[in-house]
Amino acid sequence: MPVNRQWKLMHRPVGDIRQGDLQLVESPVPAPGPGEMLVRNIYLSLDPTNRIWMSDMDQYMPPVEVGDVMRGGTIGVVEQSNNPMFVPGDIVQPMTLGWQDYVVTGMAQKLMVTPELPILAYMSALGMTGVTAYFGLMDIGKPKPGETVVVSAAAGAVGSIVGQIAKLKGCRVVGLAGSDDKCRWVVDDLGFDACINYKTENVLEALKRECPKGIDVYFENVGGEILDAVLTLINMEARIPLCGLISTYNADGPVPGPYMFRNILMKRALIKGFIVIDYFPRIGEFVAEMGPLVASGAIKWRVDVEQGLENAPTALNKLFTGGNTGKLVVQIGPEPG
Amino acid sequence: MPVNRQWKLMHRPVGDIRQGDLQLVESPVPAPGPGEMLVRNIYLSLDPTNRIWMSDMDQYMPPVEVGDVMRGGTIGVVEQSNNPMFVPGDIVQPMTLGWQDYVVTGMAQKLMVTPELPILAYMSALGMTGVTAYFGLMDIGKPKPGETVVVSAAAGAVGSIVGQIAKLKGCRVVGLAGSDDKCRWVVDDLGFDACINYKTENVLEALKRECPKGIDVYFENVGGEILDAVLTLINMEARIPLCGLISTYNADGPVPGPYMFRNILMKRALIKGFIVIDYFPRIGEFVAEMGPLVASGAIKWRVDVEQGLENAPTALNKLFTGGNTGKLVVQIGPEPG
Repeated sequence: MPVNRQWKLMHRPVGDIRQGDLQLVESPVPAPGPGEMLVRNIYLSLDPTNRIWMSDMDQYMPPVEVGDVMRGGTIGVVEQSNNPMFVPGDIVQPMTLGWQDYVVTGMAQKLMVTPELPILAYMSALGMTGVTAYFGLMDIGKPKPGETVVVSAAAGAVGSIVGQIAKLKGCRVVGLAGSDDKCRWVVDDLGFDACINYKTENVLEALKRECPKGIDVYFENVGGEILDAVLTLINMEARIPLCGLISTYNADGPVPGPYMFRNILMKRALIKGFIVIDYFPRIGEFVAEMGPLVASGAIKWRVDVEQGLENAPTALNKLFTGGNTGKLVVQIGPEPG
Repeated sequence: MPVNRQWKLMHRPVGDIRQGDLQLVESPVPAPGPGEMLVRNIYLSLDPTNRIWMSDMDQYMPPVEVGDVMRGGTIGVVEQSNNPMFVPGDIVQPMTLGWQDYVVTGMAQKLMVTPELPILAYMSALGMTGVTAYFGLMDIGKPKPGETVVVSAAAGAVGSIVGQIAKLKGCRVVGLAGSDDKCRWVVDDLGFDACINYKTENVLEALKRECPKGIDVYFENVGGEILDAVLTLINMEARIPLCGLISTYNADGPVPGPYMFRNILMKRALIKGFIVIDYFPRIGEFVAEMGPLVASGAIKWRVDVEQGLENAPTALNKLFTGGNTGKLVVQIGPEPG
C-alpha cells in the first residue's frame, strides 16, 4: 500500500541548512473529499526562496511553521478526482504546495503538455521561473533596444531566461556566473554577449570591460559585492528589478546593504522588489509572448534534475553553493505513460 | 566702486568643510554683453547637495572644479539689462549659479513677487525646495488617503513642505527631527501628526509607536540608521523617494547601505533616486497646485536667514549639524526698495 512521504520543518536553520532541520515522515496517502482531487507529484521545484520560508524573518508570505510540511511548488498527475474540471491523467500544478509524494487539493492549474512543451518546460521557462524572469525584466527593468542589461546568477533558473528575453529585445546582455562552464553555456548556447566568472575575475574591472556604455538594467538575484560593483557603473535612470538576494539568505546576522547605495540617488536609479505572485493577474501576457518562443526553441531552458524526494534537502543546498546550472528540480516519481 | 566678491573652491573637502577649502576673492563687477543682464544677488540658497558638488564623487551633474566659483542658486535684482525680456528692478532667479554678489547671465526666471508671495517664498515653498518636495512625494511616493507617510529631516527645507502636502492628501504624517523645538514646530505649526526626536528617542521603537499601521511612504533625506529603522517597518509595496543622504555626505570612506536592504525585496518596495531638475518640464503642475496653497497660507514655510556672503561656508555647516530650522538662506544684499 503506497505511503505519502513528507518533508517537515523541524527547526529553523541557522546559517546553512543542516541535517535534522527537515525530517522525512510517512503517513497514509490522503483521500480527496468532495470537489477535491488527489495528485501524485512528479517534480518538485527548488528555489532560493525556500530558504526564506524556513526562517522567521519578516517576509513576503507567512513562513513555514515548525512541524508543517515544507512548502514547494510541484507538478503532478491527477490520480483521483471529485472535481468535474479534472480527470485522472491530467497534468497539473496543485495550488497546495509541499515537499511530498501526494497532495489533496481543491484547486490546480492544468498544463497543456505537448512534445514541444514537455512537463519540465513548465518547471522552467514556462513556469514560475519564466514568469519571474519575464515580468521582472519587462515590467520593472523596461529594457530598450541598445541598452546594456546585466544579469547575476546568469546560469541559474531565472537569470538564464532573463538574458535571453533581453537579447530578443535588442539589448547588450552581460551575465555573471560562478564557473567557466556556466559562462560558456550562457554565451555559446543562450546567446548572451558576454559572461563574467565572478569567482576568478575582478567583477568591477570585468563589468567595466564588458559594459563600455555603462549599465542600464541590472536584474538582481544575488546581492553582496556584485550589486556594489554594478551600482558603481549604472547609468542615469537605471532600473534594478530586485528578484533575489541569495548571497544573504544563509547569513545568521545583519548584512550591510551596498556600499554604493548613494548611487541610487546620484544616478536617479530605481530599485523595486517583486515577487512572482504579484504578476499572476497578468499571466496571460506572459503566455501569449513566451509560449511560442519556448515552443519554437527561440528561448532555451535547462533543468538540473535530482532524483528522489529523499534527496531534496541536499539538492537545495546546491543553489547556495552554485552547484546547479539552470532550473533545479527534484524528480519525485515517474512521468505517466 | 563696487566689487564682486566670489567664493571659490580651493580644495575638495575631506570630511567636514574646513577653512581654506573655500576662499573669498574680489574682482570688478562684470559688464553684461549683448542679450545679457547684470543681476545683483540678494539671497543665496544653501543646500546639502552643495557638499556633493564640492567633492569629485560620481554625481548627478559635474562637480565644481577646483578654482571655480562655488555653485549655488540665488535670487537677485536686475541692475542692467541688454535683454528685452528684462528690465532693471525685475526680481529673478539667474540660470548662472554662484556664491557671489553679482552675476552676468543671459537667462533667468522672472518671479512674481506680491505681499503674499515675498521673495523669500521663492527660496523655500515656491522655489526649488518646494518643487523637490512636491514631485518627490507626489510622483514617486504617490501617497493615498489613510496611508502613513514618514519624513526625515522634517524640520528641514524640503521635509517641512513634504509633510504638509502629505497632510493635505489625507495621510498620517510622522516626522523625524533633531530637537524638541523642531518637533514642536513640525507638529504645532505645520500640523504633522507626530514628530520623533531622533537624538533622544529609540527611533525604531518610536516609529513603531507612531506608525501603528506600518509605513507606506518614506521621504528620505538622511540615510543611515533612520533608513534602517524605516525599512524594518515598511508595508508591502512601500515607496521611498530618495531625495538625499545627508548623513553620509561628509564621510571620507565607504558607507554601508542599510542593513535591512533585504526588506526592499521582502516588501516589494520601491526606491527611486531623483533630482529636482528631472521635474523642470513639469513645473507648471507645481505652480498650479502649490501657488494658491502657499499664497493662502495653507502651506507654511520658514527660512533661516544668515547675514552676509562672507558667512556662507560657516552657514552651510549648519545643515550638517542640524543647526537650522526650515530653509537655510544667506542674505547677500538688501531687497530693493
